[in-house]
Amino acid sequence: MESKFEFAKELVKRAGQYILDHMQEDLRVEIKSSPTDLVTKLDKEVQELLVGEILSRYPEDKICAEEGCLRASVQEGRVWVIDPIDGTNNFVAQQEDFAVMMAYFENGQGQFGLIYDVVKGDCYHGGGKFPVCRNDQLLAPFKVKPLGDFLIAGNSGMLETNEWGLADLSRAVLGVRVYGSAAISFVKILSGRLLTYITYLQPWDYAAASILGESLGYRVVTLSGQPLDFQTRQPVMMLPLEMQEEIQSYIYERKRT
Amino acid sequence: MESKFEFAKELVKRAGQYILDHMQEDLRVEIKSSPTDLVTKLDKEVQELLVGEILSRYPEDKICAEEGCLRASVQEGRVWVIDPIDGTNNFVAQQEDFAVMMAYFENGQGQFGLIYDVVKGDCYHGGGKFPVCRNDQLLAPFKVKPLGDFLIAGNSGMLETNEWGLADLSRAVLGVRVYGSAAISFVKILSGRLLTYITYLQPWDYAAASILGESLGYRVVTLSGQPLDFQTRQPVMMLPLEMQEEIQSYIYERKRT
Repeated sequence: MESKFEFAKELVKRAGQYILDHMQEDLRVEIKSSPTDLVTKLDKEVQELLVGEILSRYPEDKICAEEGCLRASVQEGRVWVIDPIDGTNNFVAQQEDFAVMMAYFENGQGQFGLIYDVVKGDCYHGGGKFPVCRNDQLLAPFKVKPLGDFLIAGNSGMLETNEWGLADLSRAVLGVRVYGSAAISFVKILSGRLLTYITYLQPWDYAAASILGESLGYRVVTLSGQPLDFQTRQPVMMLPLEMQEEIQSYIYERKRT
Repeated sequence: MESKFEFAKELVKRAGQYILDHMQEDLRVEIKSSPTDLVTKLDKEVQELLVGEILSRYPEDKICAEEGCLRASVQEGRVWVIDPIDGTNNFVAQQEDFAVMMAYFENGQGQFGLIYDVVKGDCYHGGGKFPVCRNDQLLAPFKVKPLGDFLIAGNSGMLETNEWGLADLSRAVLGVRVYGSAAISFVKILSGRLLTYITYLQPWDYAAASILGESLGYRVVTLSGQPLDFQTRQPVMMLPLEMQEEIQSYIYERKRT
């Protein structure tokens, strides 16, 4: 597993360098499901780079990835989950606050995850039997504080409609932030800068964070507090296990009203 | 004026270094008007440092500053407007995404502004007769694109209630972000990463940005499109003059309904 993890760390950095080398070119932005659901030529090229390198080194492994139709289930065999560029709208409009994500599973067990904030040059890696680090620095486990001392992050649409009580929860904490990228929100949780992140996500959006968070005391669960299915788009939150009950009380109560 | 501008650039960096040197200490966080309106010992110490240095070098100048009761009007004489730490909640909870801001006026005319993103090490400076730069790099003037290609930023409370139509505007653009700091939002506009930023602000929150934005094609105005009073807390937006009418059409229409 060590050599696979080293391979993954080198590969995610190559992907990041590829993005930096090509992001000033015409991105050929295309609309997917709606005018705010974008894909660029770099999402596709970076995914091709990652999938190609993985399968040439590990031809028996399987892939679940955002672009195209690679949809292996993480439950069976050796499976890589890939998001070539998370935060594509930030990438297109801001050229920052996006990330490359990879996660590796064996028969449903997360072995390691990687989130690479390309522009900041910060690579979050580890999980499973590996320590969780930002670059070479060990990250600290979650520390309990009063709810009102924490910032949270969420999805602007859910905030506008108070869906699942997100707006209510935001009034019980120090404030709510909207960063437009699951990866960027998750690494702020891993860094102790946010308590929770609440939104709708696909498996490639949360796979890496779910593995990275575990040994630091975090879980990624549905908004009902259930395990994720790693197959469909679900309402999701990443939170510290020690404060799950307190956070959940806001979400669950509001959902019932 | 050149020497005053050079003095200001050196001073804002000294303030930033002071914050970096002391931010790991006990911040002695206090509540001001509400549990989410915080002030730390560093807000106060940094303001003292800035005011002390300005008045020892320019004893005739006057000050308008966030903490305490220095409230000179920018309309008369030589006046410095100071926000020692903008984004105090980010500073306390995240130790990033905050900034030091200073602006200098003579008889109501903005001469230069400075916004220093301390953790990133990015100093935005210029305005008046000085070119607008990030560190040593000239910033580009605003370039028109379709509304739907832009991200905007706003205040989460206004988004929740669709106050002034912020939620409606957010649905007409590529997306809305909430960063929790006026300074951080403004420098993203100056960098071409956001179209507009809509919130309620005090003079020390917008003074520097209003001077910095002017030669790049931006204005800071009230949500009715009027000049700011530089005295009270007002509903405010920074926007490109070339797209003011289009943005204003969302704000004004919704305000009337």
